[in-house]
Amino acid sequence: MIWERLRDKRLHDKVVRAEEAASWIEDGMTLGLSGFTRAGDAKAVPTALAERAKQEGKPFSVNVYTGASLGCDIDAIMAEAGIVHKRLPFQADAAMRNKINSGEILFVDQHLSHTAELVRQGVLGEIDFAIVEAVAVTEGGLIIPTTSVGNSDVFVEHAKQVIIELNIAQPLALQGLHDVYTMKKQGERDPIPLTAVEQRMGQAGILVDPAKVKGIVITEQPDSPSTIVEPDEETSMMASHLIEFLRQEVAKGRLPQNLAPLQSGIGTVANAVFNGFLESEFSNLTVFSEVLQDAVFDLMDAGKIAFASGCSITLTADKMKHVMENLAAYRDRLVLRPQEITNHPELIRRLGLISINTALEVDIYGNVNSTHVLGTRMMNGIGGSGDFARNARLAVFVTKSIAKGGDISSIVPFVSHVDHTEHDVDVIVTEQGLADLRGLAPREKARLIIEKCAHPLYRDQLLAYFEEALTRGGHTPHVLEKAFSWHTQYAREGSMRAREMASAR
Amino acid sequence: MIWERLRDKRLHDKVVRAEEAASWIEDGMTLGLSGFTRAGDAKAVPTALAERAKQEGKPFSVNVYTGASLGCDIDAIMAEAGIVHKRLPFQADAAMRNKINSGEILFVDQHLSHTAELVRQGVLGEIDFAIVEAVAVTEGGLIIPTTSVGNSDVFVEHAKQVIIELNIAQPLALQGLHDVYTMKKQGERDPIPLTAVEQRMGQAGILVDPAKVKGIVITEQPDSPSTIVEPDEETSMMASHLIEFLRQEVAKGRLPQNLAPLQSGIGTVANAVFNGFLESEFSNLTVFSEVLQDAVFDLMDAGKIAFASGCSITLTADKMKHVMENLAAYRDRLVLRPQEITNHPELIRRLGLISINTALEVDIYGNVNSTHVLGTRMMNGIGGSGDFARNARLAVFVTKSIAKGGDISSIVPFVSHVDHTEHDVDVIVTEQGLADLRGLAPREKARLIIEKCAHPLYRDQLLAYFEEALTRGGHTPHVLEKAFSWHTQYAREGSMRAREMASAR
Repeated sequence: MIWERLRDKRLHDKVVRAEEAASWIEDGMTLGLSGFTRAGDAKAVPTALAERAKQEGKPFSVNVYTGASLGCDIDAIMAEAGIVHKRLPFQADAAMRNKINSGEILFVDQHLSHTAELVRQGVLGEIDFAIVEAVAVTEGGLIIPTTSVGNSDVFVEHAKQVIIELNIAQPLALQGLHDVYTMKKQGERDPIPLTAVEQRMGQAGILVDPAKVKGIVITEQPDSPSTIVEPDEETSMMASHLIEFLRQEVAKGRLPQNLAPLQSGIGTVANAVFNGFLESEFSNLTVFSEVLQDAVFDLMDAGKIAFASGCSITLTADKMKHVMENLAAYRDRLVLRPQEITNHPELIRRLGLISINTALEVDIYGNVNSTHVLGTRMMNGIGGSGDFARNARLAVFVTKSIAKGGDISSIVPFVSHVDHTEHDVDVIVTEQGLADLRGLAPREKARLIIEKCAHPLYRDQLLAYFEEALTRGGHTPHVLEKAFSWHTQYAREGSMRAREMASAR
Repeated sequence: MIWERLRDKRLHDKVVRAEEAASWIEDGMTLGLSGFTRAGDAKAVPTALAERAKQEGKPFSVNVYTGASLGCDIDAIMAEAGIVHKRLPFQADAAMRNKINSGEILFVDQHLSHTAELVRQGVLGEIDFAIVEAVAVTEGGLIIPTTSVGNSDVFVEHAKQVIIELNIAQPLALQGLHDVYTMKKQGERDPIPLTAVEQRMGQAGILVDPAKVKGIVITEQPDSPSTIVEPDEETSMMASHLIEFLRQEVAKGRLPQNLAPLQSGIGTVANAVFNGFLESEFSNLTVFSEVLQDAVFDLMDAGKIAFASGCSITLTADKMKHVMENLAAYRDRLVLRPQEITNHPELIRRLGLISINTALEVDIYGNVNSTHVLGTRMMNGIGGSGDFARNARLAVFVTKSIAKGGDISSIVPFVSHVDHTEHDVDVIVTEQGLADLRGLAPREKARLIIEKCAHPLYRDQLLAYFEEALTRGGHTPHVLEKAFSWHTQYAREGSMRAREMASAR
């Protein structure tokens, strides 16, 4: 069983227990872990490391670099054990988030395509250990990743030593799904040869020098299932606004009948919007995204999606069982690539993606906050949304118009943190409607966003701000002393609603 | 003389006066003008159009799309004549700026690489007339641009009709300097074949269907000279900080001896920083930029720059005379390309540029405002700075640490407008020092920026803000109700300095 997966004979004497592998890791080291949006994460060694640190009870911390968020509570386990000094480029765990927000863990919120370049340049320091999950290692020393590629290729290439977690719970049928194309240094590289979503250009896995492999740990823990919830009435309305808009773009000759390669961010809202294509007339769609969620496979099952390229497969429990048991049915229509490739500006611009990501809040001029609650508290991170939005053909941001039962408006005078500037944001969609901001000046954007996207509860209040701002003038009119007053009132009183308006209700 | 330049015989009967060409332009039309940072702008027809509108005295307005800013007061003439409805993607004129800030002219502040894609997709409406300056039209119908390429290629391709301003004051020796590579639609295009700064891949000019050329106007007005001022002590210090940093990057093996292709924004500060390379040990440098200013030619004269690729040549009067009279000496080391190519994310990332642009203000977390005074009043526009910063190997922003004799700090708690998010900003340089922000968490960035870049006049005040913010907590600590208090105090009292600190002085 194991030798069928660990096919490189040079590695046969390197099998160790997770505890032993964890014992090699020293205080102050930097680890490069596999894992992207709960998929394909290194599980056993980080868990054993946290356990060891707790037992030893002396100060111990490491830098943890990954693809994106980890599943299986790995981020929680490491955060709670207090062993994380610096974390990058993304996370989505409550315990880690709390320690980031208290300043105990230093978090670098990074574009997901940037980490690889910075590692390659040596800017993020040396990677002491790459710890990557694999479904097999071939005779020739190719590490075959499991359900994600993430940054594993660049971590393995640049790490001093490598630990492989060979996960025998993952189907061997995953082999053949990956396409690992490795970049040369900047200034020495050729064009990336990809001109269509379905093309392959790399290797089936990550080539590793066996001398660099310090240990192989056998594991059998599956990925944690995704926690997305079913579409609701509001996300369905958002999907319907977006699809109607795309229909019009096709009618105007701006998009072909099968649209353009689609990208959708992680999460319930983006997944629900994708789901909206199920009932649409669109077919022969393609996906060029980072995370492939349930909706992508639903659309493949329905014959709507012809091909999907991603960096990870992140599914709910039932869907994961179905897909893993039926991989053969998908393998000709599916590829997993490193995140440097899925999120590469060169490809995003060349292919002309339609990019759909979730906003936390949007301001009247179209700036987007994806990360910070009330401007200060980190939720998860920018992830790939910046990679996509800034280079896509069409950068769409979706959000429900209100939150907390109406006490928060997602449309505000001035976003309390800017992740995407108005230069990069083309379309805003809420359940109320859609604002196409392309080619508009700020004063035009403001009226359109308020009219189309704001919740009726907040429309007059936003207009009142905008009208007052107009009396001050400027290309982007603002009343700076009131720009964050909605946020500070919410922090103080629990609602963004203007008192006179709330009482008049 | 004229026929030696107007070599396409099919166009010989189309020569008209500027007034006649202007008479073809109707109310509500959209014009695509040549011109990039005062270089190679269409001059005669826009001027005649403004004159005509003033004489007719009835409401008349057009949309004006360009490469970037225009010289020869063209933007002022059009703005003052009241004939501009919408202006994009960049301008740098006082009269136009005033009308933009009053809301009279709608300005779309756009990444300079985006305009071409939007025109190609038809998102910005139809271009009724492309009006482009040329030094010649070849026998085969190639329009040879003058001192800039800008968006002229895409305007000519997509406009319903074309007017050529044949400028006989520009040397015919400009022919051969241009490399016009035209992009296909997104989804149908190949990789851009450029892998080194000095390569050529396109045509010597812009191919035009002679049937689309409605008129040729003969002009002889030179470009307006650039207005950059000489380096001063502070800009020299900024250059010296940056060069010392680059020296260390080379020593660490992160950059080759001849660095990487350099990009520098328009303006005095960026030019002065470039000037700093004159006394440095670096040689065999290359430039892959949009505007080529005086310093680039000084560095070529000094044998420091081996090759320069740009979109325009924008020089002071003396330098322009020298360069235009000695074009033969530069032609093997110089190429002018469309702005879609000079600013293309694919090339910026592949070549791994070092990008140096000017900030108006920077906040303690490394967000940059390049455009808006006090968050509302537009200066010029984002220009290409976003194209470069977000995809470069190294995104450097330079600014003097104070302005208005110390009443304004360029380092503030929260920038009043965000053009470049902290995700895209690698290095901040002021005359005080340099902050390398790569791989740092926000709390680390804040201390470094305050220590290295802030002016001593404001250091304690910034630290006081940061310390108070820390008591509130969060990944990016802020005191939201005071975030813009420096700006509102300046607007009210004429200084950002804290009263107790100012009085204790």
